[in-house]
Amino acid sequence: MDDMFTLNAYLDEKRRLVNAAIDQFFNLKPPVNRVVEAMQYSLSAGGKRLRPILLLSAAEAVGGECTPEVVRAACALEMIHTYSLIHDDLPAMDNDRLRRGKPTCHIQYDEATAILAGDALLTLAFEILSCPENMETCGIANHLKVIRIISEAAGYKGMVGGQMLDMINQGKFITTEKLKEMHSMKTGALIRASVVSGAVLGGGSEARIEALDLFGQFIGIAFQVIDDILDVEGDPKLMGKAAGCDAAKNKNTYPALMGLDLSRQFAAELVQNALQALRDFDRHAIPLREIANYVINRKK
Amino acid sequence: MDDMFTLNAYLDEKRRLVNAAIDQFFNLKPPVNRVVEAMQYSLSAGGKRLRPILLLSAAEAVGGECTPEVVRAACALEMIHTYSLIHDDLPAMDNDRLRRGKPTCHIQYDEATAILAGDALLTLAFEILSCPENMETCGIANHLKVIRIISEAAGYKGMVGGQMLDMINQGKFITTEKLKEMHSMKTGALIRASVVSGAVLGGGSEARIEALDLFGQFIGIAFQVIDDILDVEGDPKLMGKAAGCDAAKNKNTYPALMGLDLSRQFAAELVQNALQALRDFDRHAIPLREIANYVINRKK
Repeated sequence: MDDMFTLNAYLDEKRRLVNAAIDQFFNLKPPVNRVVEAMQYSLSAGGKRLRPILLLSAAEAVGGECTPEVVRAACALEMIHTYSLIHDDLPAMDNDRLRRGKPTCHIQYDEATAILAGDALLTLAFEILSCPENMETCGIANHLKVIRIISEAAGYKGMVGGQMLDMINQGKFITTEKLKEMHSMKTGALIRASVVSGAVLGGGSEARIEALDLFGQFIGIAFQVIDDILDVEGDPKLMGKAAGCDAAKNKNTYPALMGLDLSRQFAAELVQNALQALRDFDRHAIPLREIANYVINRKK
Repeated sequence: MDDMFTLNAYLDEKRRLVNAAIDQFFNLKPPVNRVVEAMQYSLSAGGKRLRPILLLSAAEAVGGECTPEVVRAACALEMIHTYSLIHDDLPAMDNDRLRRGKPTCHIQYDEATAILAGDALLTLAFEILSCPENMETCGIANHLKVIRIISEAAGYKGMVGGQMLDMINQGKFITTEKLKEMHSMKTGALIRASVVSGAVLGGGSEARIEALDLFGQFIGIAFQVIDDILDVEGDPKLMGKAAGCDAAKNKNTYPALMGLDLSRQFAAELVQNALQALRDFDRHAIPLREIANYVINRKK
């Protein structure tokens, strides 16, 4: 990490690291059948890889390194994120036909294959996190801790519970408090878990892990607020989907509840709080600080 | 384990142990929303609890005890099994409206809730397996091993991959070899993983674990053969569903491929092989031996 830190180069490098590791999981095991093809299709649809990168940056922030072991754990997060997108896109859920500019998994294949590909990606994440070649330096106890952190964040107390609330609340008026609760579960929990997992695998102290936990909570909500804003005013070409999708589905969003200006202000405050949580960190936390700024300034 | 061993009393006792532990996971955490209700609905639909009981019996067979820690791991298997039933029943998959005599999850609730309840049960299984109160006596390394065994068996190399093959092969003629491959993935892998996990958590030696692995493979296939036979000639009242479901869906089954008599003979041979794998075990393996006989003689 030198003084000439540029975020784009950093993100590119980490994205390459993650993508190469994801490819390896499938190279080692020749495709069994259609479900593996669908898993790869959705994984390679070109996401930002935000969650794995957050894990890597958090590990670096506490002085850890991006060893193959840590990179593999980062990949597990991308698999969980991708599974959640596949299932959320299903006709019974958000019924989306496009994702990142490509046909969604059930459009490219079929519904049964998409359900199974999601199931298999979620399961593969835990296989990767418990893989023996994964335990070299971080320690077995830390790996088990990470499995717990991630499974709690992904389950009914977190991501799945949040998606359920989202479905139930569609078309209903809810308070800003309820919206925050829903999003802290649906999107926030896994983003927070990414940061905390990185801190644990990087060998951070309890105090450091707590500070990064706080950082993750603020960034997680900020990410969703900006997501909602981009859905209203984002460039469809950059987004890979039409604008106004949420409004068309009567979704509860921050702009719908508090207006665009207040939403932007709220996101800025969240990022300030996130940066404040990192005040005692040294230059190893530069990437994480820059990512916090990127979350709020991103165009897609 | 005394000389007066009766299987039914044993199964009842273990089932009670597992059911009480399952209830506790939900009592501790008040229902967040509809998804938790759906999870509990499907979990309490009254299954045989075969997989958790196999884990407990395998732990006992190597001289281990059914400590709360081991029982919790057994519950995780029932959650994975239940999730797979919920997703298999979906309209895009087998489109079943009845399961164990009750409306399936997507009929009782709706498709979105059923998809999410399945996702949450799968995730909860790994949360339970990585829970710190779970590590008291079996050791962290063994718990991580069990997470790997179960995730491998449940994913695209096992259960999910098998369900994909089942979907793809519906209405097509396949060879007996292919049928065995499909079923060893779809049903066999998780049954085998149940037995192996019990052996690991019970503190079994490498040789004992290998013997139980073999036992699990034979029992896993036998279980599916009998399942297919029961679908043809079982009592609908005991089964909780109509007979002939597989044939109506053009499913590849053992009776369809080799006839009822040869299927019965094949199942008997598998159980003999399973018992043979346990030849060096002492009386601690009585329950496991009796369960092997039960698998082939069961009426539902």
